[in-house]
Parts: sequence; C-alpha cells; structure tokens
Amino acid sequence: MTAADKPAADKPTVRAHFPQGSDRNIAPILVEVVRGQMVESRHRATVAIVDAEGHVVGAWGDIEQPIYGRSAIKPLLALPLVESGAADRFGLTTAEISLATASHNGEKRHTETVLAWLAKVGLTVDDLECGAHMPYDEPTAQAMWAHGERPTRAHNNCSGKHSGFLTTAVHLGEPTKNYIQYEHPVQQRLLGVLEQMSGCELGAVPRGIDGCGIPVIAIPLGNTALAMARLADPSGLPEKRAKAAGRILDAMMEDPFMVAGSDRFCTTVMHATGKKAAIKVGAEGVYCGALPELGLGICLKVEDGAGRAAEIVMGQVLKHLKVIDEAAEMKLRDVLTPTLKNWAGTPTGQIRPAADCPF
Amino acid sequence: MTAADKPAADKPTVRAHFPQGSDRNIAPILVEVVRGQMVESRHRATVAIVDAEGHVVGAWGDIEQPIYGRSAIKPLLALPLVESGAADRFGLTTAEISLATASHNGEKRHTETVLAWLAKVGLTVDDLECGAHMPYDEPTAQAMWAHGERPTRAHNNCSGKHSGFLTTAVHLGEPTKNYIQYEHPVQQRLLGVLEQMSGCELGAVPRGIDGCGIPVIAIPLGNTALAMARLADPSGLPEKRAKAAGRILDAMMEDPFMVAGSDRFCTTVMHATGKKAAIKVGAEGVYCGALPELGLGICLKVEDGAGRAAEIVMGQVLKHLKVIDEAAEMKLRDVLTPTLKNWAGTPTGQIRPAADCPF
Repeated sequence: MTAADKPAADKPTVRAHFPQGSDRNIAPILVEVVRGQMVESRHRATVAIVDAEGHVVGAWGDIEQPIYGRSAIKPLLALPLVESGAADRFGLTTAEISLATASHNGEKRHTETVLAWLAKVGLTVDDLECGAHMPYDEPTAQAMWAHGERPTRAHNNCSGKHSGFLTTAVHLGEPTKNYIQYEHPVQQRLLGVLEQMSGCELGAVPRGIDGCGIPVIAIPLGNTALAMARLADPSGLPEKRAKAAGRILDAMMEDPFMVAGSDRFCTTVMHATGKKAAIKVGAEGVYCGALPELGLGICLKVEDGAGRAAEIVMGQVLKHLKVIDEAAEMKLRDVLTPTLKNWAGTPTGQIRPAADCPF
Repeated sequence: MTAADKPAADKPTVRAHFPQGSDRNIAPILVEVVRGQMVESRHRATVAIVDAEGHVVGAWGDIEQPIYGRSAIKPLLALPLVESGAADRFGLTTAEISLATASHNGEKRHTETVLAWLAKVGLTVDDLECGAHMPYDEPTAQAMWAHGERPTRAHNNCSGKHSGFLTTAVHLGEPTKNYIQYEHPVQQRLLGVLEQMSGCELGAVPRGIDGCGIPVIAIPLGNTALAMARLADPSGLPEKRAKAAGRILDAMMEDPFMVAGSDRFCTTVMHATGKKAAIKVGAEGVYCGALPELGLGICLKVEDGAGRAAEIVMGQVLKHLKVIDEAAEMKLRDVLTPTLKNWAGTPTGQIRPAADCPF
C-alpha cells in the first residue's frame, strides 16, 4: 500500500498556544551549560505535550514545525511487528520487542539477543542493511579494539529495529532484500502507520535518509507528540493496533536496558519511573515519550540538535508532569543536572534547565 | 603581579552595530544542518570582526556578551613564553612555538615534540598538570587501544600550551608546581596579558576552570576579537610584545599541523590560506582568528557550543573577508560545506551557512 492509496487521514487539530508577546518562530532557551561563575552555552528547544484527542496540554516554541522524528519514533515503527502477528508467530520475548524500539549501546546482551532473534526467523546478520559501527558503550568498544575485533551490523544501535522490519517482512511473505528502501512494502507500511498515528498525510512531505539507511519523514512536532499520545492512550485505535501499542510500551518499561543500555538516559529514567513513562531518544536533539497513566504524548526537538540538551529538557518535562516525583528526582539528580568534569576529574560546571525555563 | 596591581587598562570602545529591527539579544541563525529535503537543525552564533584600534568592521549578535575564550585564545596565552625570552633561552623551534598555541590531535609528531621540548627545559611529562586523555586522532587512538597503551598527559590536546607555561616559569625562576592555579604567577601574568590585549579589567569578572585545569576568564566577545586584532596588527603594542605576537602567528601559519593535526579545520584552512590567517578553535563553539594582512581580529561563539557550527561560521567569515578566495574555496569545499554520511557511507545531508546568513 502506498501513501497515495491511503484514504485521507483523520486530522485532529494540534495547535500551539503561545505566551503573550512571545515570538512563535523563536524556540525558547530551555537549557543552560554553566562553567564556574557564568552560563557558557544555551540550548533552545520546542516542546509539545498532547493527549490522544490532539488537545495541546503544553507547548513551547512552534510545535507546527516539521521535524524528522529519527530514532525517537522507533516505538511507532515497531507497531507492524506486533500487530501483524509476526512477533507471536516467532515467539518474540519482551526483551526482543523492547530491542525493536532501541538505539542500543551494542553491549553483549544487545548483540547476542539480535543474533538469536535473527536465527529464529531464519536470517543472519548479513540480512541487516544498516551499516556497522563500533558500540556506543565505551568499555565494550575498548575491549573490541584491544582484541582487534571489528564491529558487525549487529553492533549498529538500530539492529533491533532492523530485525523487527525483517521479521515482519518474512511473516508477510515479502522480499527481505532492500527492506530499507522507501518503495519497499516494509517502509510503505510504516508510512501508513505514521499517517494514521500522526493524523497527517505524508505522501508529499520532505523526507531524507536516516543514519541506518531507512527513510525519515517530516511530521509536525505537535503531530509527532499526538502519535506518541495514541500509543499511551490507544483507546481510539483499531483493536489490533491498540493491543500492539500497549505491548510495545510495556516491553520498553519492563526491560529498559534493551532500549538503550548502561549509563544511558532512556534506560536510567525508565528504571526510575516504572510504568509511568516510555521514553525514546533520537538523533539531532529529538526526544519522544508516551505516558500511559496520564494518556499523554511528548515530542521535543532541540533547535541545534544537541543530545545533551534533549535529555535535560525531557527530564524537565517529566518533572513538570510529576512523572518524575521528588523521590525519583533525588535518585536521578546525576542525569537531570549532570556535573561537568575536566580531564583531571575536577568538577567545572553543570548542564541544567535554564534559569527562566517557563515550565 | 595580580590584576589588582595593574594600572587601569586602556579601553577602546568596541560596540556592536545592529541591523534595524533586529533583537540584539538573539544571536542570528548562521548555520543549517540539512538532511534530505529539509533543514533539520539550526545553529545561532555571535560574530565580531574588529581592527586593532577597536573599530568594529562586522558584528552579528550581541558582541558585548562575555564569553570564555577557551582554547581559541591560546595564541594570546603564548605571548609570555616568547616575550619573556624563555623561547630563545631554550632554543624553541617554530614547531614548538606553534605547538604552544595548539589543541592538538595527540599524533606521534605532537607527543614526541612535547616530550623533547620538556627534556630541553629539564622537565618531564609528570610536570604537566593537565589530565590525560586519548588522542583526538582516531587512528592514533585505535592503535593505542589495540596495543593496550594508556594515554599520558602528553596526549592531552593542551600539552603544548602547558609546556609553554612550564618553560616560562622555569625561565623566570618561579615554582613549576601548581602553575595551573589562578593565584600562581604564570596565571596572574596571563591575566595581565589578557587585560592589556582586550582592554578590559578582569580582576572581578566571572571565571571558571578549563578542561585542562587552567582558569578561564570571562571577556566580552568583541574585546576578545580586539585582542586577536592586536596580535594581527601589533603596531600599537610595546616592542617585545609586538615581536612576540608576530612570531607566534608566523609559527602557527608556517607549521599549522602543530596547531591541530590531520583532518582538522584549523590545520586544513591555514594550509590553504598561507600567511593570511592564523585561526584557532576552542571548546563550546568558540573560534578566533588573527588576519595579519588585513590587521583584523575575529571572535565568534556558537550559542549552543557546537564545534561543527563554529567551523562553518569561521569559514563563512573568512570567505566574507576574501581571506578564502574562490580558488581556496574550491579546495576547501569539503570542510566549508561538509557532506554528512550515514553508517553505510551513503550521503544523507550537509552542514552549510544558513540560507539567510547576513554576510
């Protein structure tokens, strides 16, 4: 099914509200990087918090601006794997479904799970069409350098997502080759999922290629938050999709190590927030979240693309919504307001929400 | 000599001119990161181009904002090494003086030069008070991992600057221990140099600690450009300082590999611009330049601290001033507008000057 074949998508109104006097085109400064006695750098970001009907609960900056959701929308991209029946047919575990949403660290548990999963489907690492890169996890990468080992495609942070794409293709009898191409049924199916979940027609919007080779599709930031809200509160979705949404978020929250890994913000925060939040980072300063208890979706984008700032903004949004309560905040202090240290280990500053952060 | 002992510094007026209707507090968007058919991220920056009398030749954003010059002002921090006579006493070469201004890659030639230099002064790598970190140069770092080698302080990108500090202290009979502390004569001498060159009193301004342990001092961006202009056109400086300024810039432009290294913007651009420009990058999106033929100084700071953007802005400033002419621009295309590729090597986008960059 191509986008052109789709019926016109249901389009909830997602509009921004702007504080009086603010310039809708200027994203507010939400993060400051402090060194000694002065703020040294500042990050601007746009944030949308939306419910499953498209009501805007919170908006800062121009939430109608189109963004590429990058890896932050991987929970949405995992829907076909579950709703098609592929996950059940191949007996996928909670860990594997969680890994389908991951930008993982390439640690041993991540890569071993990918290889075992591919074997269940009758495929190998050679069927993955993402490139290879060294694991994000530094100790793992250093050990590999020390042993003269080269990375495989299983180490690519997206290998779980790609395993999910391949599994769905096998289940539906589609060719596995070229599954990363825009024209392939796997990607056209995802385009339909994104249209239905975001409420946008996406056949003619700007697009590009992601770090792992799949298409990226421009969707307004507020509508990306809407799509996440519909994962969090799937009551308005068709039954199969609704069940898949719940299963995917549950898997992320039950096994958050698989979503990212050691010393990663997604994993650390999900460990601390239990069943309240499924959050997912993306490249270029995007972060998404689905909050099942509140029935809300979050999308934020740092104007300059900095991941260090996206984490601080997501932490602040979760505090604002009391998903991170005072007890969790104490536990998470090192990641919510990280201390900067120099090469000798001396503390030199901090990254924190901006002094005049409006929420 | 402490800052308080200094006579009131000569203060040229460095004021910004703002296009009508612009908001002086908002740095303009000067860089865009494109993916496929859409701009994905944007960087704002403030830029000052100033002559040695403090006349503003170009200004975009609030150039009176205080910044930490970080490593971008290392050419200024090398002045005492030369003007004190220390460089001549120990027979320092052009390569060593260039290395005193460096944020180097930790390649073999960098570290070997540091070790030989320290030996000339009767010191060792243990006298360096910067921390150790793996070389910036990836092949060098990978080879070290493969051989189980740990980095020494000589690999620290600032080890040349620190060798210069130690050499000056030895020459002047000062203790070498604690030379990175604010109260040490080495740092107080540098404070005086920065006051004289920038035209600012700096005894009571915000300060912090740099990545390599030395103090960082807040100086208005425009005055930082002024200090660089006085390196470029030292005709108004005392004779010893004027000679030192010329010798430092010459060393950088004659041996630009020492300033940075393989595949680094500073080195690549200086190779292409000959005797026209000495440029130096700093952390958190700062870049400075001294243009001897034009008698101008440049300082720029990316609001969000991104180094990828600081390079693009510096390239654009040098094109604006015709320091990079059309022939050089052709040669430098890969670093002025770098292509982004994904893990598989497929081109996915570009970093480039913003479509509405005002210069």
